Amino acid sequence: QRLRALFQYKPQNIDELMINPGDLIYVDPRQQSEAGEGWVVGTSHRTGCRGFLPENYTERAHESDTWVKHREYVFDTASRSFTKTEKEPNVKPNGEAHNLSMSRSVTNVVSLQNAALRRGVLVMSHGERVDQVFGKSWLQQCLTADGKYYRADLNFPSSLPRQKDSMKQFECDPPLSCCGIFQSRLIGEALLEQEVTVSSVYSSPALRCVQTAQHVLQGLKLNQKVRIRVEPGLFEWTKWEASRAIPKFMTVAELVEASYDIDTSYRGNFPLSSLVPSESYEDYVSRSSAVIKHIITPSPWFFAFPAVPGVILIVGHGSSLAPLTWALTGLPSRDSGDFAQMVQKIPALGMCFCEEQKEENKWQMVNPPVKTLTHGANAAFNWRNTIMED
Amino acid sequence: QRLRALFQYKPQNIDELMINPGDLIYVDPRQQSEAGEGWVVGTSHRTGCRGFLPENYTERAHESDTWVKHREYVFDTASRSFTKTEKEPNVKPNGEAHNLSMSRSVTNVVSLQNAALRRGVLVMSHGERVDQVFGKSWLQQCLTADGKYYRADLNFPSSLPRQKDSMKQFECDPPLSCCGIFQSRLIGEALLEQEVTVSSVYSSPALRCVQTAQHVLQGLKLNQKVRIRVEPGLFEWTKWEASRAIPKFMTVAELVEASYDIDTSYRGNFPLSSLVPSESYEDYVSRSSAVIKHIITPSPWFFAFPAVPGVILIVGHGSSLAPLTWALTGLPSRDSGDFAQMVQKIPALGMCFCEEQKEENKWQMVNPPVKTLTHGANAAFNWRNTIMED
Repeated sequence: QRLRALFQYKPQNIDELMINPGDLIYVDPRQQSEAGEGWVVGTSHRTGCRGFLPENYTERAHESDTWVKHREYVFDTASRSFTKTEKEPNVKPNGEAHNLSMSRSVTNVVSLQNAALRRGVLVMSHGERVDQVFGKSWLQQCLTADGKYYRADLNFPSSLPRQKDSMKQFECDPPLSCCGIFQSRLIGEALLEQEVTVSSVYSSPALRCVQTAQHVLQGLKLNQKVRIRVEPGLFEWTKWEASRAIPKFMTVAELVEASYDIDTSYRGNFPLSSLVPSESYEDYVSRSSAVIKHIITPSPWFFAFPAVPGVILIVGHGSSLAPLTWALTGLPSRDSGDFAQMVQKIPALGMCFCEEQKEENKWQMVNPPVKTLTHGANAAFNWRNTIMED
Repeated sequence: QRLRALFQYKPQNIDELMINPGDLIYVDPRQQSEAGEGWVVGTSHRTGCRGFLPENYTERAHESDTWVKHREYVFDTASRSFTKTEKEPNVKPNGEAHNLSMSRSVTNVVSLQNAALRRGVLVMSHGERVDQVFGKSWLQQCLTADGKYYRADLNFPSSLPRQKDSMKQFECDPPLSCCGIFQSRLIGEALLEQEVTVSSVYSSPALRCVQTAQHVLQGLKLNQKVRIRVEPGLFEWTKWEASRAIPKFMTVAELVEASYDIDTSYRGNFPLSSLVPSESYEDYVSRSSAVIKHIITPSPWFFAFPAVPGVILIVGHGSSLAPLTWALTGLPSRDSGDFAQMVQKIPALGMCFCEEQKEENKWQMVNPPVKTLTHGANAAFNWRNTIMED
């Protein structure tokens, strides 16, 4: 079995293996008797060293990757002493070339450590939703006499996802507009340009949030690599739902059927059935607090590990940014009147970013890794009334 | 030499060849002695028939296309009598299958005729420009202390095109925002979905218009197939230029260097040097009228041909839509006060479409082949002031 390292792991004990992102690791299933739960014994293709490593720092390598690597490296199957595991990579013979190589390698290790070992939480609101532009009657505007969907304006999505019930369901759970897709993808591309490592993605069950997460991941070129965890506890303050009821969301099975990259093994912290219509502000704040704490706490099964480094992406609503980040950083929350005013100011793809400090579980709000997105509106246009009117 | 038919051509004389879009035509250079200027004698791969055809209804076929076709068809090099040129394609032996096949083939020919033989002129305004969102100081917002460009907001383009002079030039000739690129590409994709055949593209020399044309062509998957003709006469009413001067535009050579698909052989109807700063409204209307008449008139070199069918795309300014289409359809123009009010209402990618009637050179304004594009604005967001303010 071959694994590929996703993150850097620096050995904490003499019998552990140093791995860097991208390393291929050979794991012999017959030699795992000494490995504790969640750990494996592996040999690094790059260094030839052997030792224990945390399995959740890796993914299964594709056969094709391995094949390419085989042509580049001679694979050393000889087992080595555990005392060699802390050897620096890329050590060259003495002389000037050696020093140059060493200093470059040290710089790389330091920058990797800063970039990869800290955890971040990036909370963002979803992109432009169709009803925001076309009003509550948007679906009626897009249906032909025989009930088929068509695009009455080019900002309507080219199609609606298939789901089992009537299209009416989308009236309470509207999709992104084309502009919302553009916004989401642009943010994903900007995160990629900044080389932000996204380790996991959580989304509100609202379709507009799942779609935003999907297009951000596409911009990051991480679709089909990082899968979306649909967390019902991330849905917005239910008091703001126009229908005074919890909308009927697309199920995980329907989302998968509609080609969204969903982590089907994820079980939400807060089941859909426990969302209460018209909940109080205090209930909403405490729900948000419970959800963010669940998200940043590694699963108890992995108690033996440090948390996976990288950025946890959370796609929610305008109402998600403040309560999630207040709970994380320990900032006091505001009263519900102030809160409502604040949420008015949060645009599509509004972002807050919290970074874990050196002491684990201390978080601080800092500038997000990418800039804001500001653009103008485009008005409806009627050539007949404008160009030909008397 | 092998040509590929771009448009349907119905023979007007007994010695002419019937061609349908996509047909491969074999042309023997040694047999062209009888062909008049602009005409060639060719043999159709599909029908095996031979005759005269207008060269500007075709493009040079790629070698790879020809190779694929060779595997599908046996190429008949025997020359045939010109009397066979009007034979219907796909004629099958008698019986039910024959009738079905015939009726399908007739329908195809009729719809092709309607779609391909009429000419249309689609005039559109450019996409969102950066200074529209970020104001006149947009370039200052994007320059580092040492004069390098960076993206202060994700709606700024990821880079500015290279040109010889200082970046200051872009202050009077601003580029599209990322949202403007999105708008242009969306319109191109919608035109492709509607199977609109774009035969040529003309653009104002303003960078935002050339960029809009480029991204519309990319959406249409026509980039590198149809090249942009930069027509200085399409620049907006010069009275509206804030600088009271004609901006210094990127030259055709600079645009080509910056990877725009420009038709370098095109010589504008209205040279840049004849644009007058602060021209009168009457001068602007008559300039627009002269330019559109030039654009719809086939080059005198091609006097022997009917005009090339398909849609002529014109990318201009908000101020372009009315005067160009008034001149084309013979509608009376409005006074300059009404005109200024009207232009206020024209959004990015606002479109007017004129279709040539059965009598050549009679044009009528009809619904554009694609819908409008309507979207909302996205406000600037400051997490510190919004989420952390007291």
